[in-house]
Amino acid sequence: MSLFSGLFARGGASEEVSDRAFLQAMLDFEVALLRALARVGMAPGEAAEEVARAARAEDFDLSELGRSAAEKGTPIPGMLSVLRARVSESAGAHLHRGATSQDVVDTAVMLVARRALVPVLDDLGVAADGCALLAERHRRTLLPGRTLLQQALPTTFGLKAAGWLVGLDGARWELADVRERTLAVQLGGAVGTLAALGERGLEIAADVADSLGLAQPELPWHTMRARPARLAAALGAALGVLGKVGRDVSLLAQTEVAEVAEAAGEGRGGSSTMPQKRNPVGAIAIVACSERAPALVSTVFSVMPQEHERAAGAWQAESEPLLELLRLTGSAASTARELVGGLEVDARKMRGDLEITDGLVMSESVVSALSASLGRATAQDLVERAARRGA
Amino acid sequence: MSLFSGLFARGGASEEVSDRAFLQAMLDFEVALLRALARVGMAPGEAAEEVARAARAEDFDLSELGRSAAEKGTPIPGMLSVLRARVSESAGAHLHRGATSQDVVDTAVMLVARRALVPVLDDLGVAADGCALLAERHRRTLLPGRTLLQQALPTTFGLKAAGWLVGLDGARWELADVRERTLAVQLGGAVGTLAALGERGLEIAADVADSLGLAQPELPWHTMRARPARLAAALGAALGVLGKVGRDVSLLAQTEVAEVAEAAGEGRGGSSTMPQKRNPVGAIAIVACSERAPALVSTVFSVMPQEHERAAGAWQAESEPLLELLRLTGSAASTARELVGGLEVDARKMRGDLEITDGLVMSESVVSALSASLGRATAQDLVERAARRGA
Amino acid sequence: MSLFSGLFARGGASEEVSDRAFLQAMLDFEVALLRALARVGMAPGEAAEEVARAARAEDFDLSELGRSAAEKGTPIPGMLSVLRARVSESAGAHLHRGATSQDVVDTAVMLVARRALVPVLDDLGVAADGCALLAERHRRTLLPGRTLLQQALPTTFGLKAAGWLVGLDGARWELADVRERTLAVQLGGAVGTLAALGERGLEIAADVADSLGLAQPELPWHTMRARPARLAAALGAALGVLGKVGRDVSLLAQTEVAEVAEAAGEGRGGSSTMPQKRNPVGAIAIVACSERAPALVSTVFSVMPQEHERAAGAWQAESEPLLELLRLTGSAASTARELVGGLEVDARKMRGDLEITDGLVMSESVVSALSASLGRATAQDLVERAARRGA
Amino acid sequence: MSLFSGLFARGGASEEVSDRAFLQAMLDFEVALLRALARVGMAPGEAAEEVARAARAEDFDLSELGRSAAEKGTPIPGMLSVLRARVSESAGAHLHRGATSQDVVDTAVMLVARRALVPVLDDLGVAADGCALLAERHRRTLLPGRTLLQQALPTTFGLKAAGWLVGLDGARWELADVRERTLAVQLGGAVGTLAALGERGLEIAADVADSLGLAQPELPWHTMRARPARLAAALGAALGVLGKVGRDVSLLAQTEVAEVAEAAGEGRGGSSTMPQKRNPVGAIAIVACSERAPALVSTVFSVMPQEHERAAGAWQAESEPLLELLRLTGSAASTARELVGGLEVDARKMRGDLEITDGLVMSESVVSALSASLGRATAQDLVERAARRGA
Repeated sequence: MSLFSGLFARGGASEEVSDRAFLQAMLDFEVALLRALARVGMAPGEAAEEVARAARAEDFDLSELGRSAAEKGTPIPGMLSVLRARVSESAGAHLHRGATSQDVVDTAVMLVARRALVPVLDDLGVAADGCALLAERHRRTLLPGRTLLQQALPTTFGLKAAGWLVGLDGARWELADVRERTLAVQLGGAVGTLAALGERGLEIAADVADSLGLAQPELPWHTMRARPARLAAALGAALGVLGKVGRDVSLLAQTEVAEVAEAAGEGRGGSSTMPQKRNPVGAIAIVACSERAPALVSTVFSVMPQEHERAAGAWQAESEPLLELLRLTGSAASTARELVGGLEVDARKMRGDLEITDGLVMSESVVSALSASLGRATAQDLVERAARRGA
Repeated sequence: MSLFSGLFARGGASEEVSDRAFLQAMLDFEVALLRALARVGMAPGEAAEEVARAARAEDFDLSELGRSAAEKGTPIPGMLSVLRARVSESAGAHLHRGATSQDVVDTAVMLVARRALVPVLDDLGVAADGCALLAERHRRTLLPGRTLLQQALPTTFGLKAAGWLVGLDGARWELADVRERTLAVQLGGAVGTLAALGERGLEIAADVADSLGLAQPELPWHTMRARPARLAAALGAALGVLGKVGRDVSLLAQTEVAEVAEAAGEGRGGSSTMPQKRNPVGAIAIVACSERAPALVSTVFSVMPQEHERAAGAWQAESEPLLELLRLTGSAASTARELVGGLEVDARKMRGDLEITDGLVMSESVVSALSASLGRATAQDLVERAARRGA
Repeated sequence: MSLFSGLFARGGASEEVSDRAFLQAMLDFEVALLRALARVGMAPGEAAEEVARAARAEDFDLSELGRSAAEKGTPIPGMLSVLRARVSESAGAHLHRGATSQDVVDTAVMLVARRALVPVLDDLGVAADGCALLAERHRRTLLPGRTLLQQALPTTFGLKAAGWLVGLDGARWELADVRERTLAVQLGGAVGTLAALGERGLEIAADVADSLGLAQPELPWHTMRARPARLAAALGAALGVLGKVGRDVSLLAQTEVAEVAEAAGEGRGGSSTMPQKRNPVGAIAIVACSERAPALVSTVFSVMPQEHERAAGAWQAESEPLLELLRLTGSAASTARELVGGLEVDARKMRGDLEITDGLVMSESVVSALSASLGRATAQDLVERAARRGA
Repeated sequence: MSLFSGLFARGGASEEVSDRAFLQAMLDFEVALLRALARVGMAPGEAAEEVARAARAEDFDLSELGRSAAEKGTPIPGMLSVLRARVSESAGAHLHRGATSQDVVDTAVMLVARRALVPVLDDLGVAADGCALLAERHRRTLLPGRTLLQQALPTTFGLKAAGWLVGLDGARWELADVRERTLAVQLGGAVGTLAALGERGLEIAADVADSLGLAQPELPWHTMRARPARLAAALGAALGVLGKVGRDVSLLAQTEVAEVAEAAGEGRGGSSTMPQKRNPVGAIAIVACSERAPALVSTVFSVMPQEHERAAGAWQAESEPLLELLRLTGSAASTARELVGGLEVDARKMRGDLEITDGLVMSESVVSALSASLGRATAQDLVERAARRGA
């Protein structure tokens, strides 16, 4: 979907979830496994290094692999046969020992997530810093607080930005935690017993986890899918928080409100036939990403109850939604970083909007002040009648 | 959820999907079945009439039935045993013959839908009529057309209302079609073979369908769930269309836009402490209903692949989301009827908002007019430069 | 996702929803529009034909267009500028007149759907024919009917296949209906008023619809999204029905049940290290596709309430889920065609499985037979006690 | 839904999410707020205690409150007016000071969750202990490991139970963490500025949090909804894990597999007309609960991007799905506790099922053993040919 999906594939994470990156992650698993086998003496060290030199995704023909994957329902046999053709027979003989296809795919998804989260966390961090700056700079910039899209009471733009900051910080913290603790290696063999690795199974799994920078699980998690669900939920929450920022900006940027605008420049957001428009394209791109998240999260949750030792369809349905969530989060985070960094705030318009109701926006404060002496009910009644008379 | 769910249980449909109405629908199935058995001579006619007199939901203790349903995982045995206790032994002996619990529940859901759709269709029709009136009355009321929440070109409020009208009419047509053709009786017996009814199975099923006003399916649809899915989709689409109306009204009613307002009166939408607020409570209630629809639709779709002759969990999960969708659609339709009927349109403010950009909102029209003689590119360039100079 | 998504991109529909096919559909819109303009004298006929000759997707650089789309948030400006560079200046000047980007994208999605549904309908038809054959051939092949995954009463494999047939036929009918009536052209210009086309707007829209084989809507549907929702629902329902077939086959193919098997051959479904396995890979691929459908349907429904004359994020989020649903339906339908056509049915094993419970599977029939003379309660009691004694 | 929802409302959590419990939680908020006001001298201490005595949900007429909530779109005014009528005028005058309706509802949802999670955590803990016992007892009980529903390699029932244990433990840990850190008080006043509480706002909020046992947030989270999303995700993950257990049990309990059965007794799972059936009703109830979870999770995520200082529909749509998730999790956890505790394991049948393939289930082990000396490819080839000859 390179053509149409411009909005959904911005920023560094997009590269990290490409087909080629996914293939590289699968190859990295095979290399890490073979090295681990070598370290416990179950494979020759030179075989591992020979394979390591050959396991470079850029040398593979992706469309050929794709065809083979479509035919067999899994990309592993195709990948292994290309890889075997690129090394000596003896080295190839030790490849993939003790592993099942699901081990490769599950570990690759985790590894891709680990790598894609680097730019995501970075972008979220910079966006949060930008919010902190806005919060500081506008701590006294008054604007109407709006509930149910109606002006209610004054608030400050600094407080609004502080809300965004808290949200982004929380999302960032949660994703970092998932990256550290939830992303785990998968190595269980055909039915999760590590049978083909004899006594050394757990040791080898630990070694593979270590060399890939992934956590080591208590048990193989072939059909116990809390890890993908936790990853999906953290990504979905991040997209929800980002969507909140995007929605607020798009509303504040409305022609009739015009309290903020996205940074102008290089043709973005302009409309050649409607020069008066200053489209909040960043905000809209973020909202679009966030609209797609909840359903993808729900797919990852809905495939959790997987049959026995490998699911008959549910597992196979899980990876693409996960990768899609990574891409969307990356795109929205990268766009938010830019949006927050360049946001133009019109403090004068904000203050002006407070005047629209001729002071009625202060009613609650007046009620509050009068309540102390008159009691709340009387104060309310008094203000309400005064307000109606005024209007 | 009577307490908190005020927003979601307005209008006539709410009554029709209550526990008591559902129980009545189950009882109606048993009566229709027994009458059909009697008509082919497989049960005495007087038994059918005796049961018909006893099968009144208002005489049942709902909480007792609830307890029994929780224990057995189905409300049927409890219902039958109460019903049997209320008729002669000989009449009771013929009850439920040839049917399985799923037959009762599936038919009851269809029957409840058939009944609940009466007020829904009525409310949608009146709301659509209201839109037609607005479209007619405001065919020349200009206001800014807005894309990406930015003023783009002028349009008319009449055209906006005509859009709502087309949406509501379509939703109404689709629901009426579903009511006529999709809502079908279920009668298949234990595994969908109608085995216990001998040669007369299909004849009896047709009779039951007839007397309940439901369609007769080609085959029992115990695990072929296209009918519930089609019902869910039509309800979800109606809620989507209603949500569009609600969203537009809530945006047009913003303090800064104030081009429409909901009918005032009896304390609705006011805020005692913030008398300047005129909350678009109808619009918000509609949007709230519509926000919940897509996920409920997805549940009904996700349980479609049901195992063999009765699902092990998926079927059981289907009814509540369907009933919830009926309730939400009913609530939103009833609210929309009221909202559209009482909508206050401020044509002066609409026209005033067209001036905000000092005429730039007409840029595209100017480009268009100039294009004929200058070519589009030159015209565009010219207008764009003029616009910037103006700003 | 060419690499990993083998399971989800089988069959002819996959080609029809590719980036290149989507680009061609966008180009087809521009050509149809220009020809329509020419026919009413608003553009020179030769310009239309010059553009028609140049508007061939295979001549465009997709990755370059992708980059431009990512930058601007829409692929249209990039496409138009490449197209303009390939024709004379005078021809280029008339391109895209009166249209807005959303017109192009919406119409292209509809056109892609129209084309992708050709192989989908064909595959569903052949799969349904295959079920009809199975239903006919196995009308007397007994096997255990199973409810809650427990043997309940005998049924026939023919009836099971007839159930699949009814489901597939219904899905096919619904998709054909959507193809004919729901897939519509979009042409409304900037805010849906067709303003830039003067008096000839509706006439031009009708002409474009005609030449693309799409329906003509009552009004532009920029933000009234019942059409995409109806398409999504029909695709989701088809995937639900297909998922039912896949689930049944995967359960019947279990090692312990082994009543059916997928056609063997060319290494599909075999496992090199576990030669006893005969994996139901077709069934699993179908189930995997169907697991992803409900959430994608929900996304299309959830973006229905779109703001004013063009949504700020919701519209942009809609196309990819729709295209994904088309791809998944195409893949599952093509796999089902193959699966049903080659299904091996082991009638002997089916009959053998009826013996597992030593005749208890006939209990309900016995109860039924005795009920006539003894009354249901006594019959039930009698059989139950006999059964327990037997066990 | 007391009648039909037996499967979804088992166990202690159901009580805790009832309308009455929710009302009590709202009343508890008002009492805690008034006491906090009293402690900083902003209300008389006796008023707080007078209100505390009156704030008992069992004294309120729920259906009357429901009617008022339906009319006003929020239950708060109705609740306050009943409460005020039950205390002296002077006490009533201090009620609800500084709070907005959303403060009450948000805090009540959190409080209800806090209380409902007590039985949920308890049930999950006992279910996990039951799995630990099974894992220990059956560490050497062999059965076929099954992938894609085909026998693959032997595994042990102990390992299967250990997988369930890891899943349940993880779910329990996550819910306990959410309970401690995520469930927070809401107190922000009309627009989240705590304006009506002057300088003492934060202090009062901290006091309310303390007395209700909830966390204190960095800022009011009126429209920053990461907390509800995190709660929903943890509940959804628990239901996913429970669903895995339910699905495995339902598959192992199939008539043809019969390796496990749920505890018999008091008519559960039996079928009066089909005495051979031993329906896995617990497993099915759990699966049914888990089928409904993902969509409810997606609703809570999809309403995250909320407008400004209070959403126009999205917030209102959030509470019922959250409460529903609590009810479903409680029901599934309570059923799982019972199911695991009473599970009957047929070790003899398990071992027997290993023989079905005449030893081919050991093929991979043979390949593995031969690989050391012959090389993997040769070994595989040899075993494959031998297996085919055998078959």
